[in-house]
Amino acid sequence: MKEKVCGNLLIIGGAEDKKNECIILRHFIEEAGGSNGKICILTVASEVEEQMGKMYVQVFQRLGCTSVEVVHIKDRKQAAEKQTVKALKEAKGIFFTGGDQLRITGLLGGTIAEKIIQEAYHQKKIIAGTSAGASAMSDTMIIGGDTDTPEKDSIKMAPGLGLLGGAVIDQHFSQRGRIGRLLLAAAMNPLILGLGIDEDTAVHIRDNGVLTVLGRGTAMIVDASSTVMSNVCETGEQRPLYLSPVTLHVLSEGCIYSLTNRSMLNS
Amino acid sequence: MKEKVCGNLLIIGGAEDKKNECIILRHFIEEAGGSNGKICILTVASEVEEQMGKMYVQVFQRLGCTSVEVVHIKDRKQAAEKQTVKALKEAKGIFFTGGDQLRITGLLGGTIAEKIIQEAYHQKKIIAGTSAGASAMSDTMIIGGDTDTPEKDSIKMAPGLGLLGGAVIDQHFSQRGRIGRLLLAAAMNPLILGLGIDEDTAVHIRDNGVLTVLGRGTAMIVDASSTVMSNVCETGEQRPLYLSPVTLHVLSEGCIYSLTNRSMLNS
Repeated sequence: MKEKVCGNLLIIGGAEDKKNECIILRHFIEEAGGSNGKICILTVASEVEEQMGKMYVQVFQRLGCTSVEVVHIKDRKQAAEKQTVKALKEAKGIFFTGGDQLRITGLLGGTIAEKIIQEAYHQKKIIAGTSAGASAMSDTMIIGGDTDTPEKDSIKMAPGLGLLGGAVIDQHFSQRGRIGRLLLAAAMNPLILGLGIDEDTAVHIRDNGVLTVLGRGTAMIVDASSTVMSNVCETGEQRPLYLSPVTLHVLSEGCIYSLTNRSMLNS
Repeated sequence: MKEKVCGNLLIIGGAEDKKNECIILRHFIEEAGGSNGKICILTVASEVEEQMGKMYVQVFQRLGCTSVEVVHIKDRKQAAEKQTVKALKEAKGIFFTGGDQLRITGLLGGTIAEKIIQEAYHQKKIIAGTSAGASAMSDTMIIGGDTDTPEKDSIKMAPGLGLLGGAVIDQHFSQRGRIGRLLLAAAMNPLILGLGIDEDTAVHIRDNGVLTVLGRGTAMIVDASSTVMSNVCETGEQRPLYLSPVTLHVLSEGCIYSLTNRSMLNS
C-alpha cells in the first residue's frame, strides 16, 4: 500500500453548510484550537477571492473564531510575500476554499507558501480544503472529466499538493454523478484508492491513516486492488472501461475507515 | 443465490441507437429469427403509444424486418383482446418500449397478455425491453428515487414482471447518476444483484444465467452479498446509507458475467 498521511486533513466535498449547524466548519475550528485558534483562509483557488475571503471570515467569526486571517495569492510572487508567510506560519489551521484546483498548484506549487503549508501539515496542524481545495490535496489530482460512461480519455489529471498519498479525491460526488471517472482513476493504478466525497460531507484523515466521515452525505471509497480484469491499459480500443471486481465502501457520518487496512472499522 | 433466468432477455438501458449501426436492435432482430422473424412491439409503457409504435416500426423495417406488429394496451380490457393475444402468440420476439414501468405492470399484470409473454419467455423467445421496459423485467422494480446521496427513503419500488429473478434493474444509469439508488436497492436485500445499464447499452441474459454486454456504454453490477457493515435496517436514523464492503463489476461491450457465480468470466 502506498498511503501516505503525515498529519491532519479535513477533506470537504464542497458546498459545506455555512448557515445552520455547520458541523464541518465547527469541526475545523475545534481542530484548529477552538475559538482562540488562529485560522488562515487561502482563497488561491478562486477568481473571486475578495468575495470568497469575506464570506468565510464572516462565517468563522459567527462561529466564534476571534482570529481569522485571509491570504489571497493572485500570482506566484505574492506566495513569497512577508504577509503571506507570516499568516501561514502563525496559523493553527489552514483552510483552502473552492475554485479551480489548477490555480492552487499552479500558483502555490514550489513556493515558500507551499513549503510552509507542508511544514504545518507535518506539525499536525489541521489542513482543510473544500471542493477544489479538496481535490488538490492528493499526489495526483483530478482536474476535469466526463461524468457519463467511464471511457479512457474521459478524465484529466495533474500533479496535486501531495498531502495525501495513495489516493485520488473527487468532490461534489453524488451530486455530479462522478463515480465513473473515479472508477477510471482507480483503474489506472489500483494501488491508489479513489475517494469520492459528497457535498456538505467531509472526511477527516489523521496521521494514523484512519478516516472518519462527518456531514450530511456519503463518502465513497473505490478500491480496485483486487481487480482481475480490466481494459484500462489496452491500447487502440474504442470501447468503454471494464473493471472487475472492484471493492466499494459507502460511508456516512460516524463511519471509520482504515486507509492502511482498506476496510471499514466501525460506525 | 436467487437468480432465476428461464429464457432470453435483452435488457436495454434506454436511448438505444436507432439511426447508425443499431447494434442492439439488430441483435434483437437476429435473436427473433432474423429479417423473417415476427416482431411484436408493446407500447404499453408509453402514453404516446401511436407515435412510439410508428417510430419502432420504421426502425425495424429499415433494419430489414418484414413482419413487425405493434400492440397498444391502453387499458386492462385491451390486454385480453383477440388481436393482442394473436400478435403476442405469433411473435418470435417481443419488444417493450420505454415510458413508465408502472403502466407495464399495472395494465399488463395478471392479464392474458402477460401470461402469453411469460409463456413466450419460457419458450426461450427473446424478450427485450428498453428504459421502463428494462426496469419492469425484474421481480422487484425501481419506479423512482433520488439520484443524490443514497438515503433510506430515497427509492421507490414495486412488483415487476418477474422475468428476471434475483436482480433489480436500473437504466439511463451513468447518464442520470443512479449508482446511489442502486446501492440502496442492493443494500435492502444483498441476495439481490443490482444491475445498472447505461443508455445505448444492453445486457443479453440467457437461460444459463450468463450475461453478455453490448452497445456503447457500461453495465454495472452491484453485489452486496459480502457486505459486513450496513445501516439499512437501523430504524430512527437520519444519516445516509453506509455499506461496506460492496463488490462492483464495471462491464462493457463483449464482457461476459455469470449471474450464478457472481463473477466476470471474460471479455
